[in-house]
Amino acid sequence: MIYDLVVIGSGPGGFDCAVEAAGFGLSVALVEKGFLGGTCLNRGCIPTKLWLGATSAIEELHNQAKMKVASGEVIVDFAALQGRVQKHLTGTRKAMAMQLKKLGIDLFEGQGSLSGEGVITVATAEGEQKVEYNKLVVATGSKPIFFPGLEPDNDCVLDSDMFLAMETMPKSLIVVGAGFIGLEMAQVAHRFGAKITVVDAMDRVAPLEDPEVSKALLSTFKRWKWDVLLQKRVSGVRTVDGKALLTLDSGEQITADKALVAVGRGPVTQGIGLEEAGVTLQFNQIQVDDHLLATPNIYAIGDANGQIQLAHAAAHQAHYVASHAAGKIDAPYASGNVPSVLFGAPEAMRVGAMEHEAFLTDFETCQTSRAQLAANPMAQAHASTQGFIKVIWSGGKVVGITAVGHDVSRLTTAATLIIHQGWTAEDVYSIIFSHPSLDEALLMALKAERKDVQ
Amino acid sequence: MIYDLVVIGSGPGGFDCAVEAAGFGLSVALVEKGFLGGTCLNRGCIPTKLWLGATSAIEELHNQAKMKVASGEVIVDFAALQGRVQKHLTGTRKAMAMQLKKLGIDLFEGQGSLSGEGVITVATAEGEQKVEYNKLVVATGSKPIFFPGLEPDNDCVLDSDMFLAMETMPKSLIVVGAGFIGLEMAQVAHRFGAKITVVDAMDRVAPLEDPEVSKALLSTFKRWKWDVLLQKRVSGVRTVDGKALLTLDSGEQITADKALVAVGRGPVTQGIGLEEAGVTLQFNQIQVDDHLLATPNIYAIGDANGQIQLAHAAAHQAHYVASHAAGKIDAPYASGNVPSVLFGAPEAMRVGAMEHEAFLTDFETCQTSRAQLAANPMAQAHASTQGFIKVIWSGGKVVGITAVGHDVSRLTTAATLIIHQGWTAEDVYSIIFSHPSLDEALLMALKAERKDVQ
Repeated sequence: MIYDLVVIGSGPGGFDCAVEAAGFGLSVALVEKGFLGGTCLNRGCIPTKLWLGATSAIEELHNQAKMKVASGEVIVDFAALQGRVQKHLTGTRKAMAMQLKKLGIDLFEGQGSLSGEGVITVATAEGEQKVEYNKLVVATGSKPIFFPGLEPDNDCVLDSDMFLAMETMPKSLIVVGAGFIGLEMAQVAHRFGAKITVVDAMDRVAPLEDPEVSKALLSTFKRWKWDVLLQKRVSGVRTVDGKALLTLDSGEQITADKALVAVGRGPVTQGIGLEEAGVTLQFNQIQVDDHLLATPNIYAIGDANGQIQLAHAAAHQAHYVASHAAGKIDAPYASGNVPSVLFGAPEAMRVGAMEHEAFLTDFETCQTSRAQLAANPMAQAHASTQGFIKVIWSGGKVVGITAVGHDVSRLTTAATLIIHQGWTAEDVYSIIFSHPSLDEALLMALKAERKDVQ
Repeated sequence: MIYDLVVIGSGPGGFDCAVEAAGFGLSVALVEKGFLGGTCLNRGCIPTKLWLGATSAIEELHNQAKMKVASGEVIVDFAALQGRVQKHLTGTRKAMAMQLKKLGIDLFEGQGSLSGEGVITVATAEGEQKVEYNKLVVATGSKPIFFPGLEPDNDCVLDSDMFLAMETMPKSLIVVGAGFIGLEMAQVAHRFGAKITVVDAMDRVAPLEDPEVSKALLSTFKRWKWDVLLQKRVSGVRTVDGKALLTLDSGEQITADKALVAVGRGPVTQGIGLEEAGVTLQFNQIQVDDHLLATPNIYAIGDANGQIQLAHAAAHQAHYVASHAAGKIDAPYASGNVPSVLFGAPEAMRVGAMEHEAFLTDFETCQTSRAQLAANPMAQAHASTQGFIKVIWSGGKVVGITAVGHDVSRLTTAATLIIHQGWTAEDVYSIIFSHPSLDEALLMALKAERKDVQ
């Protein structure tokens, strides 16, 4: 048979795309070379969140202990936690497989490669299988990238995949790369008592965020006694005598039980016949048009097209592509505002434009208003009052919201809705914010005096 | 001088009203007989949330321990916690007093009574003071009410004010009344290890909520080994030999270290000359028109008018009254959707219509869609997967959202915005929900198959 739609990759983009396309009545096949769920479920967002959730009592206790309100000890059994993670992942994959079956989506397990017009070859355990399609969706995702000298050896030098597969948590950890992946994993290791060293070539942590967010995060990490080495280039990191040995360009050396290299992720687009099929790659990213098409019948979504490396962005593109392939829509793809969240404690949250972006777009009307978390009763209740919420205005409308501090991820959907609606100052009174809530800090930021950006 | 506006009561309604009116340029005086902040800050929402926050590590540890992922002990020092609560309240009151000063709002400390047209008499520590007004706002709030035989003695039989002022947490507690106040306080006592007995005359806990929410809460309380006695009338409760002794109508008796009577709250509207000034009371509630006016120049807001006993409802009314008194608006007051939240773990959240309400309004188009929390990775991460989210639709639009389970309060503002916008099925794709998040369970409920209500 010729499938209406074949999807390569079953991460949040590919899986959702297959499911939605089947829902629209298309005949669909899904190709997956590893585990259902891809990186996000098996080696990314989900295991990290299970780690953060399981250790949250440690952080809550720590904060209350600092106030001399609580004492005691929370011991998380890392092996048991890893067992629970695997159990959750297995259960989720099973549920996903059942959903595919229920929807009549055929699953081909193995590496899929494009082999001629309208044909995929899948290298399954039972040998090669040909799968024919009318339309193809490439949702092959991404994998960790490295610079020369930073290659992981799976002994003491790890990438994020290896880090998540560890059997014991190290007592000391060097994290190369102060982006969200490195910072979330460092937070977990910190909760397990590891001594943390973070190294980055940039001049701040979380370099994609508002500089004030970076500053607030750094201040917390310093209070936690982390060594944060910024503007430091790493010449190499390797295993020496059962330890990770990192050498800076300056010649300075640092050792720890393990080193996690988290300097970025790149698209998985090599060796599967994409270019031969007419797909254009640039820095390994699949180039797509405004309908997410790489060729007239090959879409690319998620990390593979390199537009934005976030699971929910992939899922949103998936919905569009399924609808487009089913002939339900023809308008160009528009992502709208894609929220970005650093999980843990503190958290960071950003939707829409940052201050400098809004300023570049329209410097004449760009304003900001803000509130500190210190006055908020929920932040006080959790003895975690560092942080702030900043609202970015342009032309009298809310165009961006950025926050850092205790539990600010909870503001994400409301912030997305507010920006989507383009709230003006009057809209602030259009709904009731519940009391008490961290959301009132957002309300306070929305109501606060607006200052021109200069 | 004659003030443009005088406000009696400095709770969330009164304080906000004074501040906003001053912001509009009115001359304002605020009268408070007790502490700035009223019940909410000093004897209500805020201390309870500080208790819940300080003990949240206990609950998080408990959940992970059940999964055999964590062990250990979290000990919260109740005296230290009470000290911290007082420090927070003192600091907040100080900040409020400074804000009043900065805005030029005169504070009169003492019981205020209406004494003739346009005049309030305040019984201050320095004697009676006359305060003249053009417009008056009565924001006197509410206080616990009792039925005969249930009066607190501040020995072993306590009301919520007394409960919050305790110096030690009892080892066993009877809670009379299974509303939000009783349930939140019972949760805290439970975390401190108290044996809990809840008694209510109704056939379910949280009787104002969706019956399925009541059922989910009850199931959790039973798992915690609480004794929940429903459809039981209490004939009396009193202190006998240093214990609380509760007698049911059936004659059955129950004892505990303390009993908390939380059967409801009633407006504080007696003995301050309201009726003499032409204000109409019904069941102690100040009767107001659709501009929240009780007489041509006396407004009543918050618990005192009995419309809805929630701090954020009072604050919303305050904004309206300040704007109306300043001549900024003339349209009738419209509250919009007022969210209602039970805090703790589990939490309950409701905005807009409940299923039965929507059915009564328009039974022909009323539908529900739902998602369980069990599949959500954040609920899984916190090992707390009981609960659900239910979306109520009417005429193809979202008119209500109800949830129960881990951290569902975080959905409140997004739910309020979605209902305010009257989302249709298509709007579900208008914004991106971040991944992973509990908000995705809301998204799943919005996308789920809709079933007619019968």
